[in-house]
Amino acid sequence: MNARIAIDAMGGDFSPSETVAGAVLALRATNKRLVLAGFENEIKKVLEGYKLSDEEYSRLEIIHTSEVISTADSPTAAIKQKKDSSIVVGLNLLKNGDASAFISAGSTGALLTGATLIVGRIEGVARPALATLLPNEKGGFTFLLDSGANMDAKPLYLLQFAKMGAIYMENVMNIKKPRVGLVNVGAEPEKGNQLTKEAFELLSKDKTINFIGNVEAREIPAGVCDVLVCDAFVGNILIKYTEGFAKGIFGMIKEEVYRNPISKLGGLLLKQGFGNIEDKFDYHKVGGVPLIGLNGLVVKSHGSATRTTINAAIKQCSSFIDKDIVEKIKGNMSI
Amino acid sequence: MNARIAIDAMGGDFSPSETVAGAVLALRATNKRLVLAGFENEIKKVLEGYKLSDEEYSRLEIIHTSEVISTADSPTAAIKQKKDSSIVVGLNLLKNGDASAFISAGSTGALLTGATLIVGRIEGVARPALATLLPNEKGGFTFLLDSGANMDAKPLYLLQFAKMGAIYMENVMNIKKPRVGLVNVGAEPEKGNQLTKEAFELLSKDKTINFIGNVEAREIPAGVCDVLVCDAFVGNILIKYTEGFAKGIFGMIKEEVYRNPISKLGGLLLKQGFGNIEDKFDYHKVGGVPLIGLNGLVVKSHGSATRTTINAAIKQCSSFIDKDIVEKIKGNMSI
Repeated sequence: MNARIAIDAMGGDFSPSETVAGAVLALRATNKRLVLAGFENEIKKVLEGYKLSDEEYSRLEIIHTSEVISTADSPTAAIKQKKDSSIVVGLNLLKNGDASAFISAGSTGALLTGATLIVGRIEGVARPALATLLPNEKGGFTFLLDSGANMDAKPLYLLQFAKMGAIYMENVMNIKKPRVGLVNVGAEPEKGNQLTKEAFELLSKDKTINFIGNVEAREIPAGVCDVLVCDAFVGNILIKYTEGFAKGIFGMIKEEVYRNPISKLGGLLLKQGFGNIEDKFDYHKVGGVPLIGLNGLVVKSHGSATRTTINAAIKQCSSFIDKDIVEKIKGNMSI
Repeated sequence: MNARIAIDAMGGDFSPSETVAGAVLALRATNKRLVLAGFENEIKKVLEGYKLSDEEYSRLEIIHTSEVISTADSPTAAIKQKKDSSIVVGLNLLKNGDASAFISAGSTGALLTGATLIVGRIEGVARPALATLLPNEKGGFTFLLDSGANMDAKPLYLLQFAKMGAIYMENVMNIKKPRVGLVNVGAEPEKGNQLTKEAFELLSKDKTINFIGNVEAREIPAGVCDVLVCDAFVGNILIKYTEGFAKGIFGMIKEEVYRNPISKLGGLLLKQGFGNIEDKFDYHKVGGVPLIGLNGLVVKSHGSATRTTINAAIKQCSSFIDKDIVEKIKGNMSI
């Protein structure tokens, strides 16, 4: 039987229309079975707009839920009280083995809290981490973790993030002996804050990873390593700054292009080139960020997720499941 | 008598040739008196290459020092042992009132340690901060502090950074009621790590600053505030990532321009525009980052400082001195 991937049909700014459309795209592109959790009537209404084959329909299930957790809800309270919300129902599918992955573009806080409370951590994992694939100049990706889960981290968490990240890059991205770096303010071991000084020691001693040392922020875009570890505060700053900075630079380029007729012509001739660069920073193509370290795969998709984003997230889950990442982490977490 | 600005002639990768050349440029551009601290013979040799007028010569002094602190030296040990180094001599000029500012492109660690030990903090200031002018999309700057001094900060430090930053922006950059933001991972007060949660409270209560709340990293390039506070780990990551990311994007653009004859022509027509954007990220034009909160002005210039950088740093000191920032901070630090 093919693995099942559950999707929060009600999460994100453009749900359920885009979340459902994304599921339709993925039904056509993968052989996985999908489960949409949300308001059944609304989901069915969106589905009416698409022609699905019988085979495709046979791989799609709708589970009706009567509640929705909004980003304004307090995460912990929402998870405890809204038992029939799409997030809680989706996470329970994962917990009970009725799905191998769960994707949501809804409240990050509720998803993280719910994932830890309902799905639970892999034995030996102190904290799960949100992991982001950061595009680099070489056209590749750097796996950055933690990018959103543990704001105040401990050195041990960073060591575990390094191990889990290396397993992901080796298996999903086929990178042999992934190079692991520690985000820091200088190259020397004694550089940084209390956390990075202690984490450096732990990382240096571990023989199971290929630790290349401290990585200064200015080296990150060059793709000097495959896995980058830091606390979630720093990681979140890095990914959001990347988003804002890319947007800012493209805004500046636009302004320069529109300056006069000559620059406008220049812009026209370089249109394809600018498109290629923008593509590298398009988070819609990545789909979402996996929460690593749980007894199942939970993927947080962007709040502004479109059908493209959700489709990409489902594909990402698909390869994560095929490579059996959860089991591989389980076998490698003894410290 | 015009104020005197001391310069570490031996600091940075291109010293003393570029540091001395920068001083020559500044002698011509300002009315300030300059002191070059370093190996007298080497400085004089560089000066032979320039024609200075008698008036310009009358504003230049050389103080011979027999030692140099390298970036490989342990900061604290170097400051204590190398008493006749250009950094220690320069800082003593400041301490004794023989200079109003000291600029160095040498070891950041030694300069920070030496500045605190020799020049000393303004009464009431818990920690001095390195402050960086971060370029934003609007063509303006955001004053980011701390960008390098206190890796493990306390909430009180961040409040004081906010106050000192606001005084700087109001007086040096002529911005009325500068908007102060706290670097964070979300807009809501309860977002972030232990440090930002507590700092948010302190900043909210203070009536002397115009606190606009948390600023997410993705909003920084848009210039949503004038002063941004954070710990030095996060600040350093932000400025170095800016440097690396800008370089990365320009590398990608170059690649796209060289792709084919059409894109090459496009690149040619947009050459001026790309130059305008690159200019915004040119740290050489800013000159250096002031260490704020000391009984005198210490400016750290980039390790790769050229004559342009040093000249800009001297001009920056000039306006800092003219606006009497140190005295203004002194009058505003009672908590």
